[in-house]
Amino acid sequence: MNPDLRRERAAASFNPELLTHILDRGPQNTRRRREIENLILNDPDFQSEDLNFLARSQRYEVAVRRSATLVKKIREFGISDPDEIMWFKNFVNRGPSPLDLHLGMFLPTLLHQATAEQQERFFMPAWNLDVVGTYAQTEMGHGTHLRGLETTATYDPETQEFVLNSPTVTSIKWWPGGLGKTSNHAIVLAQLYTKGKCYGLHAFIVPIRELGTHKPLPGITVGDIGPKFGYDEMDNGYLKMDHYRIPRENMLMKYAQVKPDGTYVKPLSNKLTYGTMVFVRSFLVGESARALAKACTIAIRYSAVRRQSEIKPSEPEPQILDFQTQQYKLFPLLATAYAFHFVGAYMKETYHRINEGIGQGDLSELPELHALTAGLKAFTSWTTNSAIEACRMACGGHGYSHCSGLPNIYVTFTPTCTFEGENTVMMLQTARFLMKSYEQMQAGKLVCGMVSYLNDLPGQRIQPQQVAVWPTSVDICSPDGLTEVYKLHAARLVEIAAKNLQTEVSHRESKEVAWNLTSIDLVRASEAHCHYVVVKLFTEQLLKIQDKPIHTVLRNLCLLYSLYGISQKAGDFLQESILTSSQITQVHQRVKELLTVIRLDAVALVDAFDFQDISLGSVLGRYDGNVYENLFEWAKSSPLNKTEVHESYYKYLKPLQSKL
Amino acid sequence: MNPDLRRERAAASFNPELLTHILDRGPQNTRRRREIENLILNDPDFQSEDLNFLARSQRYEVAVRRSATLVKKIREFGISDPDEIMWFKNFVNRGPSPLDLHLGMFLPTLLHQATAEQQERFFMPAWNLDVVGTYAQTEMGHGTHLRGLETTATYDPETQEFVLNSPTVTSIKWWPGGLGKTSNHAIVLAQLYTKGKCYGLHAFIVPIRELGTHKPLPGITVGDIGPKFGYDEMDNGYLKMDHYRIPRENMLMKYAQVKPDGTYVKPLSNKLTYGTMVFVRSFLVGESARALAKACTIAIRYSAVRRQSEIKPSEPEPQILDFQTQQYKLFPLLATAYAFHFVGAYMKETYHRINEGIGQGDLSELPELHALTAGLKAFTSWTTNSAIEACRMACGGHGYSHCSGLPNIYVTFTPTCTFEGENTVMMLQTARFLMKSYEQMQAGKLVCGMVSYLNDLPGQRIQPQQVAVWPTSVDICSPDGLTEVYKLHAARLVEIAAKNLQTEVSHRESKEVAWNLTSIDLVRASEAHCHYVVVKLFTEQLLKIQDKPIHTVLRNLCLLYSLYGISQKAGDFLQESILTSSQITQVHQRVKELLTVIRLDAVALVDAFDFQDISLGSVLGRYDGNVYENLFEWAKSSPLNKTEVHESYYKYLKPLQSKL
Repeated sequence: MNPDLRRERAAASFNPELLTHILDRGPQNTRRRREIENLILNDPDFQSEDLNFLARSQRYEVAVRRSATLVKKIREFGISDPDEIMWFKNFVNRGPSPLDLHLGMFLPTLLHQATAEQQERFFMPAWNLDVVGTYAQTEMGHGTHLRGLETTATYDPETQEFVLNSPTVTSIKWWPGGLGKTSNHAIVLAQLYTKGKCYGLHAFIVPIRELGTHKPLPGITVGDIGPKFGYDEMDNGYLKMDHYRIPRENMLMKYAQVKPDGTYVKPLSNKLTYGTMVFVRSFLVGESARALAKACTIAIRYSAVRRQSEIKPSEPEPQILDFQTQQYKLFPLLATAYAFHFVGAYMKETYHRINEGIGQGDLSELPELHALTAGLKAFTSWTTNSAIEACRMACGGHGYSHCSGLPNIYVTFTPTCTFEGENTVMMLQTARFLMKSYEQMQAGKLVCGMVSYLNDLPGQRIQPQQVAVWPTSVDICSPDGLTEVYKLHAARLVEIAAKNLQTEVSHRESKEVAWNLTSIDLVRASEAHCHYVVVKLFTEQLLKIQDKPIHTVLRNLCLLYSLYGISQKAGDFLQESILTSSQITQVHQRVKELLTVIRLDAVALVDAFDFQDISLGSVLGRYDGNVYENLFEWAKSSPLNKTEVHESYYKYLKPLQSKL
Repeated sequence: MNPDLRRERAAASFNPELLTHILDRGPQNTRRRREIENLILNDPDFQSEDLNFLARSQRYEVAVRRSATLVKKIREFGISDPDEIMWFKNFVNRGPSPLDLHLGMFLPTLLHQATAEQQERFFMPAWNLDVVGTYAQTEMGHGTHLRGLETTATYDPETQEFVLNSPTVTSIKWWPGGLGKTSNHAIVLAQLYTKGKCYGLHAFIVPIRELGTHKPLPGITVGDIGPKFGYDEMDNGYLKMDHYRIPRENMLMKYAQVKPDGTYVKPLSNKLTYGTMVFVRSFLVGESARALAKACTIAIRYSAVRRQSEIKPSEPEPQILDFQTQQYKLFPLLATAYAFHFVGAYMKETYHRINEGIGQGDLSELPELHALTAGLKAFTSWTTNSAIEACRMACGGHGYSHCSGLPNIYVTFTPTCTFEGENTVMMLQTARFLMKSYEQMQAGKLVCGMVSYLNDLPGQRIQPQQVAVWPTSVDICSPDGLTEVYKLHAARLVEIAAKNLQTEVSHRESKEVAWNLTSIDLVRASEAHCHYVVVKLFTEQLLKIQDKPIHTVLRNLCLLYSLYGISQKAGDFLQESILTSSQITQVHQRVKELLTVIRLDAVALVDAFDFQDISLGSVLGRYDGNVYENLFEWAKSSPLNKTEVHESYYKYLKPLQSKL
């Protein structure tokens, strides 16, 4: 092991193994997760190659092989717990894979929206990969705004069929993973027409390739949408349907139905379709934490190994982790990774709790959950997105090489800001909930849940002279005090947005135009709300930590997360008179002090995330820190090194060098 | 042409052609640039293919071919003006190319540092591509900190040779472009040893491959460093030298020399080596502007074409450029692109002016130029880096596809933050100059140039009660007033950093430790200084604009740039009592108003950058706006669509589907 890393580990103030148990929610989970990882590590069928050296078609092929093997092995090992399947999948694929939508969208949609007869027909064939499916919603010209989708499914009572059609270029289904080459079925979202009337979006099971030959069926045009920033292993596809007929029984009819004569039967509730969306978004919060934790692990380990430049002349080059600027780049991100991890765990728990309620007919918490997942999905993914790049650039030049693993982490993560609801649209959905809550509060009603801080607003009203009547002194030295500070911040920004909205409404022809002209403020309010939620959940997490050294180090991370956030948005806190100018100076000072404290435990804190080297896919982030020897070995495998002289020399350079 | 784009263009308040002339610094330059572009467009030897569909080795090969053709054609067309060569090169390559370092570093270094005899031996062969060279400075373990480089060149007076050696793994030369496969020579930077003493870094011309066969020479290990985030066309390479001998005459000896007996002769001045570095960094400011202008062109045109979601229910989907949040994402970046363009032009001009002075022995302005280029290189490249990604994500899902062109712009640009001096290190170099200037001011001396605002500081001293004695009212409605605001901001942050540094010095064992513990503040001071310089230069540019409509629109962009910057760092301006809380509210309000004003001219403002479609490489950013039809055509060319059924189906999926 690299001596610098050994020294860092020996000097840690806490036992990282215990912290890993906390992150896994119990030592039994850590044990089981590692068992599964070792199962894969030791299985010759999963011997992995470095995808960075392969062309796209080869990468796709490797991914199909791994996915197919994955499905077989999960059955073979009898793994059925959803968490365990997730661990297995993450460890095998380490990136997008052509069967992701089959496993993550096609099968679950069948389970939740298909009738018993449909499950009978499709579920086992899909489980056995005879039917390979995807989920085709987004179109070339239409995304987050579902009402804009153009694909039609028109019922023909004569033949008892639906006629699926892509009437325009912009209506071509575009982006679904696994659609291009892998799937033989797709669940297609289309505007349902029956008896001359449109009933909006419904889901249909559409065969697209012939079983046995895998050839596209007549009336179907299907293919790969071409190379992307990342997702090289994924055949994101297009699908054009030309008056393509499917039997009536292929409409997913557990809720809404079309009778043989074309009569439309409404579903009991529209809200239930929320369910999957809310689940996926809450899941993405945890995925943000995971991606950021990986990036931090690589950047912090490498910063402990890398010696560069000088602090004192004539002394050996210091570890770059000793530079204040490097600590300032990385430690707030490390704190963020921990914060988001706990928020992700909370979201998962809350989703399951509320989902049980829904099972028993209680939909009361759904609107808040919907607003919270939308906002937090956007908040955590935006932060993580820029944080991964900050980690990459903190690794200097080598961060740009695929040997660092960081470009792959980034390009795999960044679609999270756009898919499952574009982030700005998500923030505005949260804002809509905040504005409704504010109106309720103004109407004298109590609001509950995460927005209950709005109930305190009338007592804190800003005076005309802009002198605030906040609690005279807020405490910036404790997580509880800082949670209060963020609460005031959220309350004020929600109020500002609400008042600006009301002002615009009074000046404009329509509420909608006023909403658009306030949307910068609305997004700011949602961000402040989400920021408060993260600080609050991180602070509450501290109460659950028994182990003293771990409590201390997590408390410091929580302080750093909260104080750093204030220092970055100092204008808000000053303008709203939540903090004084001298408190802001203290905040800056305290951030610097915390960097020095966290410095001692930085390596142990990333070790506790417990990523295996193979999951990181990074020469720079290796656990043993033997970076440079392995960098050279890695480079030698570059396909350009297969021949001593590249053929382009003979073709283009030598002919120019005629005189030699 | 897409009707939305046609309408946008018809409604513009100014003539974009006239603005293009201003950007090109004269209509004659616009004319000549377009002539050159058309020369290339109409030349069958330059017919271009879409590199996105090729594997890396093919991309490298295409790039070698294009580069070789480029060199031939420049000779054939007799193009010799440096600007014209740059236009030619940019238009042909549109990205990194294997001969970049040959043309941009190897040849210029020969010109500036080789003796007459060496020029005789190497220049014409290099001009004719018999000698293809690169510039090998960075090592695997060492970058910006040059003293840390380990490669040695030890003089052997017996044979009158230098022995070049890579003593460790970390000393292997790493990253130089064109080194891996293309070059047969390298200018190698190595620690010079003669008569048992080390004289620091010197440059040597090192043959690495045999002329005629292109095989690596004995004692040389050379190859490609492997795949990267981008730069697929570039063979960034490694070079390991094992006691490799070159004649004494291959040391570049225009300045320093080693006599045949091993006597070392010092150069007249060390400062002259500044020159190239300063040139390259000042050039990178303009490159930031160029990359950002491209990204803005794509995102703004596509936002005018793309209709999505709804503002008012039951109306057709609006152009997304009508959403306030979209304007807020893009227009400040558009303003930044213009700001950086003018700063880039200023830097180029200043470099040439000061360089002439140096030619006449006047080195007085060199330290300020050095500090300014270091800081502005960092400031503009950091801003541009995140701005390109913001543009990409503002294009929704399609921004992630290579059809948008934006991933390529990003991965090609992002190394700018790291190379030619890592950005944080650059900011700290600028800070060193600022601290020196502050000390001079404190010692009662006048400082001049861009930092002359420091002379006013003593009169503006903050009172103990934290009440500032600024000029009673600053004007936030005019570019001049805002320049004053930024000037105060820079002055205050420089002062805070200086005082914090002094405090740390009084508490610590060494100045160097104190410097490190103040480095967050030092970077903030440099950023504030650079931000002021950008605002000042943009404002001064306005004076030169004759055309009234163009003056109006550029003035609005200048206001938006300045006000947006304040709104993002409101904390600084409030804390230092430069602006009041109600002024900050006005700033936010004014930003919103400017978005609405600039909305009308947004498309014309990007048209004025005058990028040909082929330079943008973007289906989304096409001049004619016919995005969707072309998106479908583009996707069909995906290599995965060459066969209807991918071979992995037969290999891995069909065997699982045994029962069908």
